[in-house]
Formats: sequence, C-alpha cells, structure tokens
Amino acid sequence: MHTDSPAPRSAPPTTPRPQPLDRSAFAVFRPIQTRWEDNDVYGHVNNVVYYSWFDTAVNGWLIENGALDIHQGKVIGLVVHTQCHYFASLAFPQALAIGIRIAHQGRSSVRYQLGVFAQDESSSAALGEFTHVYVDAQTRRPTVLPQPLQDLLERTS
Amino acid sequence: MHTDSPAPRSAPPTTPRPQPLDRSAFAVFRPIQTRWEDNDVYGHVNNVVYYSWFDTAVNGWLIENGALDIHQGKVIGLVVHTQCHYFASLAFPQALAIGIRIAHQGRSSVRYQLGVFAQDESSSAALGEFTHVYVDAQTRRPTVLPQPLQDLLERTS
Amino acid sequence: MHTDSPAPRSAPPTTPRPQPLDRSAFAVFRPIQTRWEDNDVYGHVNNVVYYSWFDTAVNGWLIENGALDIHQGKVIGLVVHTQCHYFASLAFPQALAIGIRIAHQGRSSVRYQLGVFAQDESSSAALGEFTHVYVDAQTRRPTVLPQPLQDLLERTS
Amino acid sequence: MHTDSPAPRSAPPTTPRPQPLDRSAFAVFRPIQTRWEDNDVYGHVNNVVYYSWFDTAVNGWLIENGALDIHQGKVIGLVVHTQCHYFASLAFPQALAIGIRIAHQGRSSVRYQLGVFAQDESSSAALGEFTHVYVDAQTRRPTVLPQPLQDLLERTS
Repeated sequence: MHTDSPAPRSAPPTTPRPQPLDRSAFAVFRPIQTRWEDNDVYGHVNNVVYYSWFDTAVNGWLIENGALDIHQGKVIGLVVHTQCHYFASLAFPQALAIGIRIAHQGRSSVRYQLGVFAQDESSSAALGEFTHVYVDAQTRRPTVLPQPLQDLLERTS
Repeated sequence: MHTDSPAPRSAPPTTPRPQPLDRSAFAVFRPIQTRWEDNDVYGHVNNVVYYSWFDTAVNGWLIENGALDIHQGKVIGLVVHTQCHYFASLAFPQALAIGIRIAHQGRSSVRYQLGVFAQDESSSAALGEFTHVYVDAQTRRPTVLPQPLQDLLERTS
Repeated sequence: MHTDSPAPRSAPPTTPRPQPLDRSAFAVFRPIQTRWEDNDVYGHVNNVVYYSWFDTAVNGWLIENGALDIHQGKVIGLVVHTQCHYFASLAFPQALAIGIRIAHQGRSSVRYQLGVFAQDESSSAALGEFTHVYVDAQTRRPTVLPQPLQDLLERTS
Repeated sequence: MHTDSPAPRSAPPTTPRPQPLDRSAFAVFRPIQTRWEDNDVYGHVNNVVYYSWFDTAVNGWLIENGALDIHQGKVIGLVVHTQCHYFASLAFPQALAIGIRIAHQGRSSVRYQLGVFAQDESSSAALGEFTHVYVDAQTRRPTVLPQPLQDLLERTS
C-alpha cells in the first residue's frame, strides 16, 4: 500500500453496522442446541457455526409447517446471499433461540432476518440474514414461491 | 401479510447484488480442498461451508506469514461481520482456490474480500467478505492491528 | 489381489458385529437436536456426525455435573479411541436422545458406551464407544481421574 | 459403583490397543488439507474430524477411479462401522496424508484401514477403519460389490 494512493482501502464498509434487535422484533422462535464442536480454539462459538444454526432453524420451521419437502420437492430454495453481524460471544453448552422474521418477500425469493438469543437475554447476540431464491429442481430457473410457503409467510407476518 | 400494509416486506434488499469478480481482482490465492461432508442433500456444497473455507484461507495465510499466533497471541482477531453472495454451485470433489484481497484497512480492523474459484474458471463462483476487529485477548477491547499483520497487509496491496 | 494369496483380505472383521441395545441399558440420557447439515447427499445423517453427538452428549453431561472445566482444568480428557456401529438410518429434523453408560472405569481412563435413539424407539439406531484418557494439561502424561469425575461416575453406576 | 459388584466396569477394553502403522503398510495415499475449524478448544484437531477425512479420502479415491457415482448410482455404500485409534495430536494448518489399505473384501462389503500421517512422519498419528456394505439404492438390501469397485480393489492389493 503506497501512502499516496490509499484509496482502495480507505473506502468505508459497504453498510453501516446495525444494532442488535430485541426479541420483540421476531415472529417465530426456534430452540438451538449448541455442540461441543461449535467452540473453536478461543473457547467461543466460531463465526461459521451461526450459519449452520440459521439453516437448521429456517429449514426446520419450513419442514414442520409443510413448506419444504427435501426429498420430493419439485422446487428448491437456493441460498443466494447470507450475512451475519456478531455482537456478543456465545459458547457451548449454552442453550439458544433463533428468532425468525420475514424481511422481504418477492415473487420468487424470500429474505429472512435471524436473531440469535442467549437464554434469558432480550437483545440478540448476533443478527443474520439469508435469502432463498426458489428454482425449479430440474431447470434451476427461478419459479414462483411454492403455495405452502406463501401461506406460511402470510401467517407469519 | 395484509395487502393494505405491505411495508415491512416490500422494502428492497439492503444492498444491490454484486457481480462475480475475476481472478485479476485478487492479490493472493489459497488452494482449498473440498470434503465429502461439504455437499448437502441437494448434491452441492452447502452455503455454510464457504465460510469455513474463508476462515481456513485467511487464517492459514496469516499464520504462514507470521501475522497470527493462535496459541500465544496477546491480541485476537474477532470476526464482527461476514457475508457471502453465491453465483454458481460447487461440489465435492472439485478443487478450488480462494482469492484474498484487502477491501478495507482501519486502525483496529481489516475487511477481506474473498473470491471462490473453481479450477480453470476465471469468474468467482461466490464472493465473500469478512471483517476482523483486533482486541486484547484479556480485556477484549479494540487494539491497533499487530505490527506483523500491518506489514503483511502492506506487502499485499 | 492374487487368488493364491487371499490371506490379507479373507481375515474376518476384527470384532463380531454387536446388536442394538435397548434404552434400559443406559443410565443417563441427553437430548440431541439434529441439524440441517447432518444430512448428507443421500438424505440421511452422515456417519461422521454421530461422533459430534457423542462429544456433545458426554461433555455436556460432564460440564453440567462439574466434572469438566474446559477453560481452567489442569487435566484434559484426551480421546484415544472411538467407534460406532450403525444399525438404522436417521435424518434431520428428527429429535434424538443419546444414552450414556460407563463401560469401563480405570485409574486414568474411562470408556463410555453411547446409544443413539430416535424418538419413541426403544432400540438403538447406533451404538458408539469412546475412551477418554486423562492427562496433565502441561505434561500430557496420564493422571488419575479427577475427583469430581470419579464422584460422577460413582453416582451413575 | 458398589465395591462388591464391580463387574460391569472392570471388564477390559474389547480390543487390545493397536500400534501405529508405517507408511509402507498402505497402498494408496490421499492428501488432506486441514481446516481452521478442525481445531477444538484445546488447540488440536478434534476426534470427530478424522472421520471426515476418512470419508473424503476414500470417497474421493473411489470417485476419481470411477468406482462411486454419487448422483446416479443404483447402489449405495452404507457405512456400518467406523473406528479410530488416536496416537499423536495434529493441528491446523498441518498438511496431512491419509493412507488407504483394503483390510477385508467380502461379497457385499469392504473394510478399509486408514492411516493418518503428518508430513515427514513415517508413523501414523491415527489409525482408522471403516466398513462399507453395498446396498441397492431402492430396496436398501445388500448387493454384490459394483464391478468397477471390484476392479479397483483388485488393482489396489
């Protein structure tokens, strides 16, 4: 990095850092059990693991509500974007809850916002997002959201 | 969702979807070996796994260049934000490379941009970011970037 | 493989295949939540994941009973052997329980037997074992089982 | 545990502890790249991860040699037993090799022995086994080993 051309690195982060959300911001909560392997060498849950919890919380919720059929579905929810802001560390064996809210619903896509809550904490230790785009399992082209999913999202607002 | 109050869900995604980057955008490349477990039920690498590759690529690069000492370091690089845009699917047993570029360097933080490249592909199959904030291992308060890291970032521009 | 020297491959498996055990064989049960990532490309839980459950079940039980202190312990339980027999397939989002029994208690080691039970099933879907040898965290030499662990094992018989 | 009925815990381990094997015992070697996440809170690779390497090494070898077709195969190799003896600790970012030898070949099953080798080490840091039983993908009943697999095993003796 030359001092006379700092431009590429002096750009601000692309998005302002959000604040933790309270439990009241979320429509649905799913319990999450931490695992021994979730802790990394620093003794806290590694950043990667949060995304595993998001997959588990959202897909578990979809399956229980008939809005996702892993084995027979003709449409697949492809993940096109994920992100997470981390506010406070967590560690196995803590018990957690993931709050789910629908941040955006489009014709063929849905964006979830996920709050990670330690037990008895009202403020989220982390705040994630991920966006599913629904595609035909064969052609992999975007398709309208499956009706059972539309119904579930409707009920969850 | 009531049709007369669509507001919370009609907001556009927070950031416009970026385009894949070419290999030429990256300063450093790290080989990544896929694992059997990386593939999920759909036969492609699960979205979570990309973050595991990012950790491995960046921390491996830092360690090899003397800019991270897992066991003895007095400062720790806490991950405060990660994100990934997915453009094309990947699958075990593909061999991959992760391109690393320094997107932003601050006083106590550094933001990396990561490109995931399939072999012989010039355009990234995914584009990730993650931001380390350096803190004192004891107090967990932000501290200036360690000198060996500053030196490495300087050499990598 | 030459037909006149089949010896190396014609040897029988080293141990006879055990039968599933019933819930009554176990002294302690720990709930286990499956995760989306546990399923592999065949739509069932991958063989590796069972060991992650064993770690979680045993270490969680030890921690809750004051018999393991991850961060401050002067002794560490090194895993020297693990094994698992798989009898029936499992899949996310099934809820599971891990049964724990003490198969062998030595001066510096303890061998656990683990039964994996699907909800409402009395017979184990898998049967695992793992052996901890306790060593001094500094010297890595075998040491007597910590007193809190001895007490817990005593109470669990 | 009552002192007058120590029987259940005084039984010896089911199998004598084997010794590490030398590289010369193995017919095939597969490189394995460690990952940041492989290290657990103690700073060494967690016991579970070795099985992930075994899956990756054996399945990668089978796929490259045309003996496993994940997506179209009419037969599936179910894992019915796995085990691992751990002799020396390993840690990210070490580069490893997995040695593969055919320990037993039956009509519908094959048992692999796996040696885990740190770079420049001739003696295995761990010694694993796992047993595939081949079943029809639809009926899940044992079937004869696929011909391409039989051919590969033959060439590997």
